[in-house]
Amino acid sequence: MPCIFCEIGAGRVPADIVYSSPEVTAFRDINAQAPTHLLIIPNRHLVSIADLRPEDAPLLANLVSVANELARREGIADTGYRIVTNCGLNGGQTVPHLHLHLMGGRSMGWPPG
Amino acid sequence: MPCIFCEIGAGRVPADIVYSSPEVTAFRDINAQAPTHLLIIPNRHLVSIADLRPEDAPLLANLVSVANELARREGIADTGYRIVTNCGLNGGQTVPHLHLHLMGGRSMGWPPG
Repeated sequence: MPCIFCEIGAGRVPADIVYSSPEVTAFRDINAQAPTHLLIIPNRHLVSIADLRPEDAPLLANLVSVANELARREGIADTGYRIVTNCGLNGGQTVPHLHLHLMGGRSMGWPPG
Repeated sequence: MPCIFCEIGAGRVPADIVYSSPEVTAFRDINAQAPTHLLIIPNRHLVSIADLRPEDAPLLANLVSVANELARREGIADTGYRIVTNCGLNGGQTVPHLHLHLMGGRSMGWPPG
């Protein structure tokens, strides 16, 4: 089975895409847990945040920059938002391809899961 | 009032520090919500993740690299963990100094707040 997020990033599997560049894709979570709930992924396959290497610093900055930009576009930059990434089983990671959750549009509770 | 996280980073306010470098400090959350609950901060004052500029890419990579390293030291790298950052009111940000929450040692629930 190919990686579903690799397929979305490559445009071979449909998703509600809100941002696309050669390096990064963002789309709406199909099980949204907040009025704004987007996933931001590198198009290149990385299993999780634990996979990031020093040379990936520009990619990581790009992912976060896209998240911040999408927060502005979604109108949640001023009200606030949460960025989450899950790594492995206890983290609750369900797709083994690095992704940031951008969530907002409601007051996010504590603890975060 | 000086920023409490600036003061911790500068060593002027005590905390249960688990990592310290000229650029980054990490310490245990005083209201831990998981067996491992660490805060990773840049020593330099940035209000939130929204404040990151392109030239901060190495700093961001350093923060994440420290989080991953601390996950290994805490023995949660293999079982999994969650990294969270809150921005603004709806994000649940309580200290206006950029910090990553590293959480693990238990199964993290969903949604993340």
